[in-house]
Amino acid sequence: MNTDEFFMKRAIELAKKGRGKTCPNPMVGAVIVKNGQIIGEGHHKKAGLPHAEVEAINSVKDKTLLNGATLYVNLEPCNHYGRTPPCSLAIIQSGIKRVVIAMRDVNEQAKGGIERLKEAGIEVEVGVLENEAKRLNEVFIENITYKKPFFTMKAAMFLNGCISVKGGISKWITSEKSRRLVHRLRGLHNAVLVGINTVIMDDPLLTCRIKGYRQPKRVVLDKNLKIPITANIFSKYPENIYIITSKAADNAKKRVLEAMDVNIIECKVRNGEFDPDELSKKLLENDICSCLVEGGSRTHGYFLKHKLYNKAYLFYAPKISGSYGAFNVAGFEAPKSPSDAITLKETVCKKIGEDLLIEGCFDVHRDS
Amino acid sequence: MNTDEFFMKRAIELAKKGRGKTCPNPMVGAVIVKNGQIIGEGHHKKAGLPHAEVEAINSVKDKTLLNGATLYVNLEPCNHYGRTPPCSLAIIQSGIKRVVIAMRDVNEQAKGGIERLKEAGIEVEVGVLENEAKRLNEVFIENITYKKPFFTMKAAMFLNGCISVKGGISKWITSEKSRRLVHRLRGLHNAVLVGINTVIMDDPLLTCRIKGYRQPKRVVLDKNLKIPITANIFSKYPENIYIITSKAADNAKKRVLEAMDVNIIECKVRNGEFDPDELSKKLLENDICSCLVEGGSRTHGYFLKHKLYNKAYLFYAPKISGSYGAFNVAGFEAPKSPSDAITLKETVCKKIGEDLLIEGCFDVHRDS
Repeated sequence: MNTDEFFMKRAIELAKKGRGKTCPNPMVGAVIVKNGQIIGEGHHKKAGLPHAEVEAINSVKDKTLLNGATLYVNLEPCNHYGRTPPCSLAIIQSGIKRVVIAMRDVNEQAKGGIERLKEAGIEVEVGVLENEAKRLNEVFIENITYKKPFFTMKAAMFLNGCISVKGGISKWITSEKSRRLVHRLRGLHNAVLVGINTVIMDDPLLTCRIKGYRQPKRVVLDKNLKIPITANIFSKYPENIYIITSKAADNAKKRVLEAMDVNIIECKVRNGEFDPDELSKKLLENDICSCLVEGGSRTHGYFLKHKLYNKAYLFYAPKISGSYGAFNVAGFEAPKSPSDAITLKETVCKKIGEDLLIEGCFDVHRDS
Repeated sequence: MNTDEFFMKRAIELAKKGRGKTCPNPMVGAVIVKNGQIIGEGHHKKAGLPHAEVEAINSVKDKTLLNGATLYVNLEPCNHYGRTPPCSLAIIQSGIKRVVIAMRDVNEQAKGGIERLKEAGIEVEVGVLENEAKRLNEVFIENITYKKPFFTMKAAMFLNGCISVKGGISKWITSEKSRRLVHRLRGLHNAVLVGINTVIMDDPLLTCRIKGYRQPKRVVLDKNLKIPITANIFSKYPENIYIITSKAADNAKKRVLEAMDVNIIECKVRNGEFDPDELSKKLLENDICSCLVEGGSRTHGYFLKHKLYNKAYLFYAPKISGSYGAFNVAGFEAPKSPSDAITLKETVCKKIGEDLLIEGCFDVHRDS
């Protein structure tokens, strides 16, 4: 690791302090170095609050030290007036002479900082720990680049891919240890999403039941507004529930749910299912940047078929169960050739107690 | 590791030299030690040839050295006249004064050696490296205890448990690296077994295509003798093929196949499927002690449902495929409760190139 990488690593560490709080903004950390010593640090704490670069500059009491200093930041400094003035300007005015950046901004509105800095005579280096920086802000990159939430697939199943036994019963296939990990995953996403059949069959609460984690928003795909008014999900934080439904759904029921503080969101339906672009747009509009999709079969099928998924957490109980009369995790049409199956990259297999967890990333997007 | 374990480890090593050759007998190795020095060694080479204990005794040139020596052997010395005289007698006559045994014999006919040795005044210790010894002879133990071959489940599938895409097509789900490993597994079993639908759909050769490995027998479950005379499987070693069929199958076709040197074995059918006890018996009678079952869906379903499996090698391509219109690896009725699924113990997950391999042991037997 060279010097630039060393300080960039620190910037990324600082950026991580904002995890879960900066959405819809990226996580950004900044470090100011003079003569090999860190003289200032900062990170972006929350959308609307100052950016990391400005936080770092402000942290330096004696501003004369900034003359000739180097700034390390994991994302290209912004060049636009958003909720705060452009960071590029603040850097130029500070006297900083060199800026090291991990990755370029993907946001058309904000980018241009690199060129502005160069025009002002500042030495700029781009690409230090770029992969780490991209991984850190994978949610933000997905949001901006593909105008959709970062969707994570979560499923608990038998080794033969079934997520239920006869009659749709799924309690419990995996162990308590795995289920605790799912609660942590819930807390790390802005929202949890399930299909209406899962609500009807499992009647889940969908909250995060680990102290210190945020409560995710809870989204139900429910075209015909079949959700029972008595569903468990309504017993807590109804204002955090988003029911995606269609124009065709019963208006009286919509009004009842709204009176319960539940958010009702209409989404276009095409060929009997929600339009994936509009669904993505509506979720983003409600500040759902990352979304843990917990099934069931047809819901996973919908997300898989439309290549909406970014990541998967597949929990396997060390068991095989008959498949006749059970639901498979991938409820959609099989392709004609094995090569048309959907590939998971960078798979990792972990033991969670007796269960097995396979993690992986999807590398496909609808437009590819 | 103490001294007894040290020499028992050597006995087990020697026993392994017989791997794949001793069937239906167990693998046995023996070491004779005097004053801390190994003075004789032997292992059972093949059914009908001398047992390990006798081989070890014979390997000692100066028989006077045997006086007061210790014998290490991984299985209780036999006490019956089989194809060879009882080892207990040979040990008593040799002058050996102490015998260390890893595990008792499970074979009713052969056991009693320990008592015989003790009656003759020999010091006997039982249970040194017992688990290792049991693992070594898991096939033999299964054969004797449950009167059935040791059945190993092998399947190549997507992460959602499907072993085909539309129309039953399964070529190829997993990578060449995984398929090479399957050829090695074939060579390590006495036989490979598939259902008739796999023969019809995949038309496999089912040979082991790795040099230095034995060719396994090939078994096809084919109740109605639907196998095409032109199937690929007949292109090599027809005398190694065993077709399990029913009384009801066409006699003329039986005769044609027998004329091709293929073995036709009749087995009782009950409720539309082979009687599992009789199937096991018929396979054992044909010296099939270990059998790799390669599917397809209904065949795995049959073996799972009847709790015939001992071990599983589940190969997963890092892919998810739609399940509608595809075959699941476990083609049988789902249970009513998740707790009734069939458990795999001691699961291990390995990466085989891009694929994942989950290995495990089944701990259920039909009579439990």
